[in-house]
Amino acid sequence: MEDRRVHQYDVRHRHESRDSRHNLGPPVGAQLAKLEVFSRFANQDLFTIADVTKLDSQTVIGRCRELASISDMEGGTFRPFLSPATKRCHDLVARWMKEAGMSVRTDAVGNLRGLLTGPASQRVFLMGSHLDTVRNAGAFDGILGVILAIAMVENLHRPLPFDVEVIAFSEEEGVRFNLPFIGSRALVGTLDQAAINLITPALRDFGLDPAGIPDAKLTAPCLGYLEFHIEQGPVLDHANEPVALVEAIVGQIRALATFSGTANHAGTTPMSLRQDALTAAARWIVQVEEIARSAPCLVATVGKLEVQPNISNVIPAVVTASLDVRHPDDLSRQQAFERCRQAAGNAAWTNPVSVRTIPMDVDLTCKLESACPKGTRRMISGAGHDAMILAPHIPSAMLFLRSPGGVSHHPAETVLPEDVDLALSIGQRFLESLTI
Amino acid sequence: MEDRRVHQYDVRHRHESRDSRHNLGPPVGAQLAKLEVFSRFANQDLFTIADVTKLDSQTVIGRCRELASISDMEGGTFRPFLSPATKRCHDLVARWMKEAGMSVRTDAVGNLRGLLTGPASQRVFLMGSHLDTVRNAGAFDGILGVILAIAMVENLHRPLPFDVEVIAFSEEEGVRFNLPFIGSRALVGTLDQAAINLITPALRDFGLDPAGIPDAKLTAPCLGYLEFHIEQGPVLDHANEPVALVEAIVGQIRALATFSGTANHAGTTPMSLRQDALTAAARWIVQVEEIARSAPCLVATVGKLEVQPNISNVIPAVVTASLDVRHPDDLSRQQAFERCRQAAGNAAWTNPVSVRTIPMDVDLTCKLESACPKGTRRMISGAGHDAMILAPHIPSAMLFLRSPGGVSHHPAETVLPEDVDLALSIGQRFLESLTI
Repeated sequence: MEDRRVHQYDVRHRHESRDSRHNLGPPVGAQLAKLEVFSRFANQDLFTIADVTKLDSQTVIGRCRELASISDMEGGTFRPFLSPATKRCHDLVARWMKEAGMSVRTDAVGNLRGLLTGPASQRVFLMGSHLDTVRNAGAFDGILGVILAIAMVENLHRPLPFDVEVIAFSEEEGVRFNLPFIGSRALVGTLDQAAINLITPALRDFGLDPAGIPDAKLTAPCLGYLEFHIEQGPVLDHANEPVALVEAIVGQIRALATFSGTANHAGTTPMSLRQDALTAAARWIVQVEEIARSAPCLVATVGKLEVQPNISNVIPAVVTASLDVRHPDDLSRQQAFERCRQAAGNAAWTNPVSVRTIPMDVDLTCKLESACPKGTRRMISGAGHDAMILAPHIPSAMLFLRSPGGVSHHPAETVLPEDVDLALSIGQRFLESLTI
Repeated sequence: MEDRRVHQYDVRHRHESRDSRHNLGPPVGAQLAKLEVFSRFANQDLFTIADVTKLDSQTVIGRCRELASISDMEGGTFRPFLSPATKRCHDLVARWMKEAGMSVRTDAVGNLRGLLTGPASQRVFLMGSHLDTVRNAGAFDGILGVILAIAMVENLHRPLPFDVEVIAFSEEEGVRFNLPFIGSRALVGTLDQAAINLITPALRDFGLDPAGIPDAKLTAPCLGYLEFHIEQGPVLDHANEPVALVEAIVGQIRALATFSGTANHAGTTPMSLRQDALTAAARWIVQVEEIARSAPCLVATVGKLEVQPNISNVIPAVVTASLDVRHPDDLSRQQAFERCRQAAGNAAWTNPVSVRTIPMDVDLTCKLESACPKGTRRMISGAGHDAMILAPHIPSAMLFLRSPGGVSHHPAETVLPEDVDLALSIGQRFLESLTI
């Protein structure tokens, strides 16, 4: 064990732990060494990462960065559903899947699927995430979950008593057709005919046959689904923790409020005779912030605001504001939304779009927890993921990796190598602990 | 006097007075009758409008509406500086000027100027306003002042002991070159070389010679300038008064404030870890409103707001907001602006653009007041007008006509016929009271 290296995580002294890592010299070559990493958590429990034998964080991060260069835009990463870059991306990911021992196919909605056949089982365990990106994206959102899953398969020490299918979903972000989760919906058979009609020309252009969509649906008895994903938020980074178990994907209510006033001359209209739609909206935004801060786990956001006529010397006549309210408890979320709506007084509202909270599978999450360092937190995902679509049909679990700076959907999006190594180790322990 | 009609104004019972007007039957033909209108103000003083002999409100309003149909846009009124529609507009207005006995010329910046030569004077008295409009404008802003002036000249009972020049300024709104008051600046010789360079191609296209701009400058000894204009605000309409004397044109300070936060996911970022630029801007907008309401005569407006990235599920990163502060007292205005700036905390600011309050001429305004009904209010103009440019050079006075609903810069902009008749009468009394 000449190349053994020790990485230390210390929840309370993040920069010290980073420095200690930097003192270790250059990363160990992926194929050369068995890497052992010790993680010391707040509770001083030691956790040994002893299973990363072949592909480590260097390979995983390198592959994610390589995929980020396969893009449909100049100077940044952008891969919408079934774009030209997606085809090149598939070629590369398929090669890595094959190198890990998997047989590879692309299903009828463009999910790239690698199957590792177990010795004597008809059961399958799923892992994966999505390959599509937003415009000017980072290198890890979605892709990391796919590349980690492939690496875990390649890193396996022994045959598993079940099949493993790694799925690189074709579409999660919803950029191309304003329709998210195309890939995962097809897998569980919830892609409706309107959606199929919408995407059919794109499928054909990519060389896919829409008639095969029913075959994309999972039919084999399924043990479960595991998704690794960056947190896309600042919670773990702020707490200086590497990973978290996802208990549920939060429900949300979205709507648009329209505040109406009267456009008038900014110089000739006394304050007492104004009906200023923007000051009304501003008072409401301040109240929304207060409502959201009044309860833990509640977030409310006014992200989009359109002012009419939006001229510096004209009193605003109409302001349309988006509202996005999220809380894991469906009733609390609905009540918070109603408080926001009441605070808006006479504003006109669009019909709210409501999505319920989707819990992850309790048993599978406990198994994943057993593979994690003691003290790994459980948290609610504030963003939607493919696991949200699969969870009502297949026992699903998710592991979040810290997002440094809380940054995502941005070229600065990144991951820490030590967190990736920890995730590889957790995944491998988890996989090897599963029984049929 | 068979066609004599009586119109009654009652400050306290506007709808009654309108009803009484409606009971009078169809309007009297402009050329047919001498119209007498009695105005009973709050003080019960009776004011007789006995001088409108030839052109009355029907003609004036009809001419304004006819000009509104001469436009550079489909389905609305739009006549920017020296546009194709401006040429047709000039043809028509020149005809009316000539019918009123004036000789007509277009000066080198496109001001249309009608001169009524007095019997033995080298002194001139100016009247007018502008012919250009904003996009999708109303029929009266600017144009009314020109058409009223022409009608007053035509309605004169006797020769005046001075020349009268009616000027239809080519440009007040600043739409075409983002440069307002081109016409009036040329008249007083304050159009700088940069502005001349900017407009030279447009002048040439219109058949004008930029070399002649110095000749557009007023050289004759000038008795003064009188401008009639719609109020463009709700004050007179709210008080149910037909006209007001303008004491000054309010100064203003304009600037842009930029609030910076951090873009982040609306679902994954707890309230406690947010830096939301929009909530910061909203709190500030509420404070600006409070500051503006804290002092009489002060107005402050946030009319324009740009949110980045302006996506419903992303916490706003940058908000840029306009601020427009107006107060007739230069010091009070500056202090109010500083309070608004302080309320913005760490926001970044553009250099404020500051315009001082421009007083109208005290003597000329007193003369105009003598021609008005007793109790006519004096007020500050919250909007800029050509008189603002002329006032530092030529004794200037302004009369506002009520804007029903306070509406301007909108197709619904209008005037009441009884107010126009009153203005015609005031103007004629005023003109005939002037001595050299």
